[in-house]
Amino acid sequence: MRIDLVFTPGQVDELSLRERTAVVIDVLRATTTLVTALGEGAREIIPAATVEAAMKISGSIGTDAALLAGERHGRIVPGFDLGNSPSEYRGGRVQGKSVIFTSTNGSQALARARYAHELTLCAFVNLSTVAEFLLERPRDVSVICAGNEGGFSLEDSVCAGMLVARLRERCGGEVQLSDSALAASALYRSFGRGLLSMLRTSEHGRHLQEIGFGEDLKECAAVDAVPVLPLLDGGVLRKRRTDARSEAALGPAHG
Amino acid sequence: MRIDLVFTPGQVDELSLRERTAVVIDVLRATTTLVTALGEGAREIIPAATVEAAMKISGSIGTDAALLAGERHGRIVPGFDLGNSPSEYRGGRVQGKSVIFTSTNGSQALARARYAHELTLCAFVNLSTVAEFLLERPRDVSVICAGNEGGFSLEDSVCAGMLVARLRERCGGEVQLSDSALAASALYRSFGRGLLSMLRTSEHGRHLQEIGFGEDLKECAAVDAVPVLPLLDGGVLRKRRTDARSEAALGPAHG
Repeated sequence: MRIDLVFTPGQVDELSLRERTAVVIDVLRATTTLVTALGEGAREIIPAATVEAAMKISGSIGTDAALLAGERHGRIVPGFDLGNSPSEYRGGRVQGKSVIFTSTNGSQALARARYAHELTLCAFVNLSTVAEFLLERPRDVSVICAGNEGGFSLEDSVCAGMLVARLRERCGGEVQLSDSALAASALYRSFGRGLLSMLRTSEHGRHLQEIGFGEDLKECAAVDAVPVLPLLDGGVLRKRRTDARSEAALGPAHG
Repeated sequence: MRIDLVFTPGQVDELSLRERTAVVIDVLRATTTLVTALGEGAREIIPAATVEAAMKISGSIGTDAALLAGERHGRIVPGFDLGNSPSEYRGGRVQGKSVIFTSTNGSQALARARYAHELTLCAFVNLSTVAEFLLERPRDVSVICAGNEGGFSLEDSVCAGMLVARLRERCGGEVQLSDSALAASALYRSFGRGLLSMLRTSEHGRHLQEIGFGEDLKECAAVDAVPVLPLLDGGVLRKRRTDARSEAALGPAHG
């Protein structure tokens, strides 16, 4: 297995993804939130690159079946049903619904990764589930960090490094790492012992605390709290049904 | 002092550099080679973005005063006087000459950084000299890693991290780091104890060994071997004359 990794979506070579499994990571907060939404029974996630695109999709689906969700610069888009805090997606709010989602960084990363053979989302909350999925697959892996407004983000890189380290532990010398994948695994070794502290000191983590979303960081640091595998299929993200572990953990109500 | 850092030139926000000191790093091999060329008495370095631009400049200067230098994919450009091995620039070859230089990654990084208030080049060979220069300056710093064909490179990131770590040691809490600068300093902690080994295992280092430039890696790993400070002035790079330390070390013949 070869693992390549980009620290920012702008570096993605889109066509090189055709034969690969792509993993999009946006720890603060898009992938944490979307994994949570699927864990809470959302029917599907419809990614939208812009606020305008999201509203157009919403118009075509109807407001009963769909929720408009997402943020710009950390705050809920005015007029939307949901922002980008994982906690907003709990308590039956998204059960059975289509969630039309747009965010500053995560949506751009998803758009760049759309040509991949398979595409999943990773955050600390579903890290082991994603690692197990990749180990089942004979394909090479491209990890795409969403980053922060076009630039590097520490939290995505550390999460990517944790995934690389996990795959390497299991496959040993059979995993070939790009420079970037090797660097990410070193960052995980440096920062992995205090994930919540790392999130609090990261640039985007500090911004979220400043605008009142400090509580979200705890949820985003909870390793394996939501063992769900999202998969892109026909332009929408759904929870993989054959994931026996997550089905068992979440119970039939979430199936 | 604020330190920002990009792992690839594509992430440079060119206009944000106007008030900053920019440091371009391309350890394998452009900045190592150019620092060496200035240490060996080259009159100036004229950076050219393309092979065609380099040849055009050469035509206007004349072949007595100028040397055409550079590489594509690691190998000397056919018809050029010099490639990109530091050793080629020794033994009086570049003394008093203008060196017109183009390379795959380094030239692109220089082009992106050209609007900076001041611009210097850094490699392991002149790391302490660059750190001292930055410490004299009240300005914020942008470190620009040249990377590898648009992507991340381990060796540039580790060198950048060594520079960040050096500045932090000297300034303590007065240095504010971006996520990327913090990550680079962690990479230096992970890989800095074996620089030559890191260069040999990096993607571009492996490529250079495969095409017969393995010996260059030793020169590129030699910390502080060439205490020269290049500065961009009017579109060309010259050695800073007021650098008392490097003058003393190199002797008057190189002044």
